[in-house]
Amino acid sequence: MALKQREVHLINHPDGLPTVADFRVVETTVAEPAPGEVLIRNLYMSVDPAMRPRLAVGQQPLNKAMGAGAIGVVAASRHGDFKEGDRVQHQAGFREYWLCDGKGVRRLPADDVSPTLYLHVLGGTGLTAYGGLLVTGALRDGENVFVSAAAGAVGSVAVQIAKIKGCYTIGSAGSQAKCDWLTNALGVDVAINYKEGSLRKNLKDAAPNGIDVYFENVGGEHLEAALPRMNPLGRIPVCGMISAYNTPGARSTGITTLSNMIYNRLTMKGFVVYEFEHLREQFSSDMKGWIKDGRMKFHETIVDGIENAPGALIGLFTGENMGKMLVRLGQ
Amino acid sequence: MALKQREVHLINHPDGLPTVADFRVVETTVAEPAPGEVLIRNLYMSVDPAMRPRLAVGQQPLNKAMGAGAIGVVAASRHGDFKEGDRVQHQAGFREYWLCDGKGVRRLPADDVSPTLYLHVLGGTGLTAYGGLLVTGALRDGENVFVSAAAGAVGSVAVQIAKIKGCYTIGSAGSQAKCDWLTNALGVDVAINYKEGSLRKNLKDAAPNGIDVYFENVGGEHLEAALPRMNPLGRIPVCGMISAYNTPGARSTGITTLSNMIYNRLTMKGFVVYEFEHLREQFSSDMKGWIKDGRMKFHETIVDGIENAPGALIGLFTGENMGKMLVRLGQ
Repeated sequence: MALKQREVHLINHPDGLPTVADFRVVETTVAEPAPGEVLIRNLYMSVDPAMRPRLAVGQQPLNKAMGAGAIGVVAASRHGDFKEGDRVQHQAGFREYWLCDGKGVRRLPADDVSPTLYLHVLGGTGLTAYGGLLVTGALRDGENVFVSAAAGAVGSVAVQIAKIKGCYTIGSAGSQAKCDWLTNALGVDVAINYKEGSLRKNLKDAAPNGIDVYFENVGGEHLEAALPRMNPLGRIPVCGMISAYNTPGARSTGITTLSNMIYNRLTMKGFVVYEFEHLREQFSSDMKGWIKDGRMKFHETIVDGIENAPGALIGLFTGENMGKMLVRLGQ
Repeated sequence: MALKQREVHLINHPDGLPTVADFRVVETTVAEPAPGEVLIRNLYMSVDPAMRPRLAVGQQPLNKAMGAGAIGVVAASRHGDFKEGDRVQHQAGFREYWLCDGKGVRRLPADDVSPTLYLHVLGGTGLTAYGGLLVTGALRDGENVFVSAAAGAVGSVAVQIAKIKGCYTIGSAGSQAKCDWLTNALGVDVAINYKEGSLRKNLKDAAPNGIDVYFENVGGEHLEAALPRMNPLGRIPVCGMISAYNTPGARSTGITTLSNMIYNRLTMKGFVVYEFEHLREQFSSDMKGWIKDGRMKFHETIVDGIENAPGALIGLFTGENMGKMLVRLGQ
């Protein structure tokens, strides 16, 4: 008995900020699993700023289901490693059901953790913050840290790790509500609303002892403001540059303060989460501990229904998420 | 019998490109050495792009002799470590004579090397290229290297070290004569005249296998063009950003291609020559060997007379030097 399901295709490579017209929700028919196959019903899908660069020509093919992190439940299985009811995680999201051969599918640990956490604090999002700050950023206890997009999924983990490591921590975000969350719930020392006043002046005021590590999520005006504040031997792990994703090339804000790198002997280093795979066990153990003892908090911004997945992705670039943005398909 | 000598003072902190009116040549009287003192007669003084940022407020004091690398000869000594006729090197240049207590003065090695070489290939200039390329840039044999300002003092050493290490080497310079020197005398694979045509296109054409190490002397348009050409795990040791020194802040060319750092996991790292002091012995030995076997060539652009020192310094920013610019005071 064939099953109908919906999936999200990219139908046009966006130039600038994507619009919902760049995507199409397509209904397809999924067969029953053949021997060796497993059918997954997705429960939650992740949207992530890093999905934007992958919409470029030569990356995401048109008229095919888009990839995205997802958690789901095994609906039917003729695969030896999976049985009906297993909770699983994979990277082939942006569809309601996925019939596959099990490659790239991992069972979620049998623990009492809410499974959505494996899409953020306990997943790639958390590992990105952990590795980017501690490995690429070589953070030392008690340093001065600045995190941009600090109320975002990665940023909100990064500021809390910085606080756990005893650091003076500054975060930027795009609304008063997000800034309140940063200071009141997450313990950030100073939150800067980058939409109010001069970011450069506000950052200078917020960093009387300079910045040792700038965890870079935004680029543009944020990087321009941070570079002159960096202390000697400061580090800038570059996780993302969300401000540039939708304004490529000459339309984006040019950085004019890079000569601060020379005399202060700064290091700026791009990184990608897969570099930290070898740390996953230590990361999971640390993070579960921090969640348990209340030092790692999180917030989920939830959008319901696959038809709203394109809007959720676009919403990342207009600041609609606080913490992790998820698309809920079922329970 | 008091001696008259001349020295160069900064009388105004320049905004933008310095002019000769920002400097004054002042005649002073120098006493005979007291016990413990040594009187040095300078022979050659060095001008260096890094002297420009030091002209800022809070750095070089006004109405005092400027610092600069120099070599000289001991004219008179009542200091136990120095005797008349000794060839010495120090950092208190931009004056004809220097009466001092010997601190910061070192005797030049007793070798058959022309002493001016200690102001460039065998001095800080050479060590800057050596450490920046091999340590900060972590150059591996046979990689693809791009050096901007390749006909400058540091750049011309850097391209030759890259060639000695078997690298495919691209250099940029600001005239056809400099480009000819790079390819014909120094063995650079492709020399790009950045004043002709599109630097971005010319660099793309010159780097069919991308760039592993970009030795950055210029900033601005050069960095903008290099970032998209960098290979995964590429390194950008930042020695200088001469294009920005005279057009600070918003007037300089903003860099819009930094998001290439992320997925290619690039490292950009500022450095200062004193980091490499521990390598000086190895550097001197390598460099003397390369000079001896003809693999390290150099060119001196010589300006005569202390009254022309300000013009020589300014000339670095208008491209008047090929190789090392020196001010000659005597023989």
